[in-house]
Amino acid sequence: MNIKGRNRVVIENVYPEIDCGKYPIKRVVGENVVVEANIFTDGHDSVSAVLLYKQKKEKNWTESPMNFIVNDRWRGEFLIEDLSNYVYCIEGWVDHFKTWLGDIKKKYDARQDISVDLLIGAKEVERAMYKAKGGDRKRLKEYYEIVCDTGNPDAAIELVNEPEFTNLVYRYPDRSLSSRYGKELLVRVDRKKALFSSWYERFPRSCAPDPGKHGTFQDLEALLPEISRMGFDVLYLPPIHPIGKINRKGKNNSVICNPGDPGSPWAIGSDEGGHKSIHPELGTMDDFLHLVKKTQEHGMEIALDLAYQCTPDHPYVKEHPEWFKKRPDGTIQYAENPPKKYQDIYPINFESEQWKELWEELKSIIEFWIDKGVKIFRVDNPHTKAFAFWEWMIEDLRDKYPDTIFLSEAFTRPKVMYKLAKIGFNQSYTYFTWRNTKKEFAEYLTELTKSEVREYFRPNFWPNTPDILPQHLQFDGRQEFLKRLVLASTLSSNYGIYGPAFELCVQQAVSGKEEYYYSEKYEIKHWDWDAPGNLKNFITRINMIRKDNPALQFTNNLHFCKIENDLILSYVKTTGDLSNIILVVVNMDPYHTQSGFVHVPLEKLGIVPDQPFMVHDLIGDAKYIWKGERNYVELNPHILPAHIFRVHGRLKKETDFDYFM
Amino acid sequence: MNIKGRNRVVIENVYPEIDCGKYPIKRVVGENVVVEANIFTDGHDSVSAVLLYKQKKEKNWTESPMNFIVNDRWRGEFLIEDLSNYVYCIEGWVDHFKTWLGDIKKKYDARQDISVDLLIGAKEVERAMYKAKGGDRKRLKEYYEIVCDTGNPDAAIELVNEPEFTNLVYRYPDRSLSSRYGKELLVRVDRKKALFSSWYERFPRSCAPDPGKHGTFQDLEALLPEISRMGFDVLYLPPIHPIGKINRKGKNNSVICNPGDPGSPWAIGSDEGGHKSIHPELGTMDDFLHLVKKTQEHGMEIALDLAYQCTPDHPYVKEHPEWFKKRPDGTIQYAENPPKKYQDIYPINFESEQWKELWEELKSIIEFWIDKGVKIFRVDNPHTKAFAFWEWMIEDLRDKYPDTIFLSEAFTRPKVMYKLAKIGFNQSYTYFTWRNTKKEFAEYLTELTKSEVREYFRPNFWPNTPDILPQHLQFDGRQEFLKRLVLASTLSSNYGIYGPAFELCVQQAVSGKEEYYYSEKYEIKHWDWDAPGNLKNFITRINMIRKDNPALQFTNNLHFCKIENDLILSYVKTTGDLSNIILVVVNMDPYHTQSGFVHVPLEKLGIVPDQPFMVHDLIGDAKYIWKGERNYVELNPHILPAHIFRVHGRLKKETDFDYFM
Repeated sequence: MNIKGRNRVVIENVYPEIDCGKYPIKRVVGENVVVEANIFTDGHDSVSAVLLYKQKKEKNWTESPMNFIVNDRWRGEFLIEDLSNYVYCIEGWVDHFKTWLGDIKKKYDARQDISVDLLIGAKEVERAMYKAKGGDRKRLKEYYEIVCDTGNPDAAIELVNEPEFTNLVYRYPDRSLSSRYGKELLVRVDRKKALFSSWYERFPRSCAPDPGKHGTFQDLEALLPEISRMGFDVLYLPPIHPIGKINRKGKNNSVICNPGDPGSPWAIGSDEGGHKSIHPELGTMDDFLHLVKKTQEHGMEIALDLAYQCTPDHPYVKEHPEWFKKRPDGTIQYAENPPKKYQDIYPINFESEQWKELWEELKSIIEFWIDKGVKIFRVDNPHTKAFAFWEWMIEDLRDKYPDTIFLSEAFTRPKVMYKLAKIGFNQSYTYFTWRNTKKEFAEYLTELTKSEVREYFRPNFWPNTPDILPQHLQFDGRQEFLKRLVLASTLSSNYGIYGPAFELCVQQAVSGKEEYYYSEKYEIKHWDWDAPGNLKNFITRINMIRKDNPALQFTNNLHFCKIENDLILSYVKTTGDLSNIILVVVNMDPYHTQSGFVHVPLEKLGIVPDQPFMVHDLIGDAKYIWKGERNYVELNPHILPAHIFRVHGRLKKETDFDYFM
Repeated sequence: MNIKGRNRVVIENVYPEIDCGKYPIKRVVGENVVVEANIFTDGHDSVSAVLLYKQKKEKNWTESPMNFIVNDRWRGEFLIEDLSNYVYCIEGWVDHFKTWLGDIKKKYDARQDISVDLLIGAKEVERAMYKAKGGDRKRLKEYYEIVCDTGNPDAAIELVNEPEFTNLVYRYPDRSLSSRYGKELLVRVDRKKALFSSWYERFPRSCAPDPGKHGTFQDLEALLPEISRMGFDVLYLPPIHPIGKINRKGKNNSVICNPGDPGSPWAIGSDEGGHKSIHPELGTMDDFLHLVKKTQEHGMEIALDLAYQCTPDHPYVKEHPEWFKKRPDGTIQYAENPPKKYQDIYPINFESEQWKELWEELKSIIEFWIDKGVKIFRVDNPHTKAFAFWEWMIEDLRDKYPDTIFLSEAFTRPKVMYKLAKIGFNQSYTYFTWRNTKKEFAEYLTELTKSEVREYFRPNFWPNTPDILPQHLQFDGRQEFLKRLVLASTLSSNYGIYGPAFELCVQQAVSGKEEYYYSEKYEIKHWDWDAPGNLKNFITRINMIRKDNPALQFTNNLHFCKIENDLILSYVKTTGDLSNIILVVVNMDPYHTQSGFVHVPLEKLGIVPDQPFMVHDLIGDAKYIWKGERNYVELNPHILPAHIFRVHGRLKKETDFDYFM
């Protein structure tokens, strides 16, 4: 009988626990981990339980109490304080003192003889006493004598109702027969930027001040002050490596490449080098190092694009033909999605027999750039590379460089996207780009923020990318750009835009597609960044609002508000202590004014129901005094499609009203 | 790198898998196991997968195909053919032949040159050819030559559209880089009675033909023909052991015991013996063996009550005081639920240091009765004994005696009830007794039959027990008894009644409680079994309907039908092949006639929508011709509160109408 037969407490259905504990949950420093479990025992005995947690590298557990919620469900929580992986577990035990506390009162109230029962309780107090030291022990000795005094049950019962007494005994529980949950569950801890980041994507080659010239890292440096002023903190560059010359694509993805066509940066590799080289026209490695440094000085970080694929002239093709698939005619298999062919791209063959060398080389690319000061990588099409590779690679690198962040560019099937997050990606692209109606947003955000997905998948919302100019941005005008910006930046704490196409409201697509017409992917652009109608100041304000309001620096704190108009979406976000409350109202109709009564969840927000409270529109700066749950809103999309209200509630004292003066 | 780096298929979220595979799912012989999983790979390659299964003791896996459903979800199934535990697993692989099949057609349709592609496919055919033998190999050789013939792509494409070709290549897949799911999941297989059983509970001591006499096993034997005629197949006896004399309870659970009061059979143990002895007034062990034999001859089985608790005069108390809790005054702790005291019962202390000896002894009780021919045990209050004990005990016994069935009598918190099922109980009492409205039934049965619970928790529905005379049976008259019988016996394939209190419609309760007034638990009854108004013939018919209609011999095949009247509950049950279709309609209002249009799910039932079909009420024998989805029903509870229709649909040929002649 290889069983702990006397340990009667059951601990099961622990949440969060991803795929039976195979994958970690994710947190950033400063976030809480809330843990729930079914905890119970046989019979009528009471149970106590603690949540155990520690940094993985530490030896000793810290404990925090677990509390009974309802129906054998218990809950506890702990705070992530350091950039270090944590583990958690649960311990529960039959608590005879707690059982006794509950029983003795009932018996006393029923006027039964409790003298033997007092002696049973006294044993518990005595047990605690022998465990305690110093003042506690002395105090417990006094309590012990009172409980022992069967001639004076009233005094003992008075004690039983005294929290000082009960808490002191609880401090020394008898856990000799406790049960421990069978697994230690991992928390992968990231730095704060993994949860709160504002991305700006820009092609360096389009940064030259002179039209027609190839932009350089130096040209991009000149734009850093403005990008920083706009409030972004991640500057993401499409691939900066030499661009293939064989089968290079021309303008508008044409198979005909005219002289001077620069090709797509995602067609990586030429006689000038591969993934560890820099496209010569952008500058030198020193220029890049300088850019990295300057970007940091402006409070931002460079994110590089990681596209594991090669052009026919990539050095790997010659040096490691075994990493590619060979066709029966001796040529190497190019990428295809029949009947489409991508003859400028050779996919890597993850079934290669030399997979170990391949994996090491791919990892070394990232280490190369980490060494150059890059810590953020936007990974191109990760779902077309072997999952086992990502899992191995990210875990290995994250152990060495815990501040690395990988953003997964996978607009693919949901289970595949979630799998990538489980195996290590810190942020992920999403279906945000194709969600349109209030119902679609409510359903999708509920899945992202209220299901288990919230524990390991961090959305990053992009209204546009060089690959995607969604239909609504093609047809619904400037106000639609404003709307999508507000939605992306307030629904998700991570968001990004592809600029300047976004702030210049570029709307022209390849007919019938969601592709940019004359896409920057295949040519150098000269943007008139200050063109009339540009959204730079609006974006600046939105990013400022995000920086000033910690409620917007989380995603899972989202709560949708009821409103009797299907064309208005409204939601609140708050900090845990309710010191920062943001209420967003968005008119989903790009053409007409919409109005309605938004239901403010007063109780959830800690607002006294019968007192007025102030809402301050952080976009338009207007202030309103509201009262009660239902409050009127009206939005003309041609003026502004959204409110971002800061709610000033909890007005319990008159002096708080000073705020309104 | 201790990884299978080239194996690219992901298999996860397998269903069913109870608590990460810690607990088995349950099936009876003849049932299917339907298994689902998320199966996918990186990139655009196609995937194939098989469900692996075998009897646990076998060495080799059998395979059955898994099919893609939707959104990376796959499904397969297998049949339980033997009373033996099974295991199942999943294997998936990148199927390059399947990928090729999909691609080559698209390329051909786009009029691309496919000569190299044909050679790629030919390699796949060749690979299959070398694996195949005999006729298959010869055939594949012919195919190979066709596919190789790049000068004649049309012939190859013709082949690609030919299932004979594709299926033959699929028969020899390349699984060298396949992925296997990481766990082998267990199916605990029971005999059919675990899923389909009709229980009749009866106190042998109340079976004497002479009023006032203590009934015996022999007296009970005389009733076997009638119990058998009524259609029951499990005859469940309350404890048959010596009843304690110390602190024995009197009539109506009184602490005053008058001379001649027989006490409660659940107060087990006296100077006449304990759990392995027979109460002398019931007869001898030989009488019992005779009863077991006679019961079998009548097509029934004896179920014994397993109540692990002792009276103060139980032999264990003297022989093993270490198995009980001692109070500070030296006495043994009696059962209590403060302020209530049960001084006639000593609970066993599962925290005893001698737990190993205790567990062995408790197990030996069951083995003792198994040796006497008993295979079914109704376990009293299992939730007040340690879960680890049950898990160990049931697993151990079930390995030796796979046809043993344990029914868990636990009307406790849901998670506790489900836990008992997970750790081995084959059937369980439920909340059926306290479900009343249509909404309550729909919600509860959906939980039982459509959630994961269905895989391991087999409900047994009891309208009454000696402990429970529910309110509706106290107040709503004879028609309520009919209604609850129909509900119990058609919603659940396992059901039982406590008789003759049920069939005699005994309605008198202790005021304000759900306890029988002058409960049989504390006194000997003399039942007038043939009293006017008794339900014996109704019960007989219901049990006959259950025996004749396999659709009623399953529980999870339940499907609720829509009906625009909240006081009518309607549901269908079918066999997998639709050869048996039962439609039940119950008037939930015990006082008034209710009517409405029941929506028959024609498509689900395989009934041609525009053809009439016949429904035959197996209770009242009436027949109706219905047509279309919505059909009128009307039930007067004072005549009959329910229909149990057998539906004769699928009338595709005219000759089928003969049935109506």
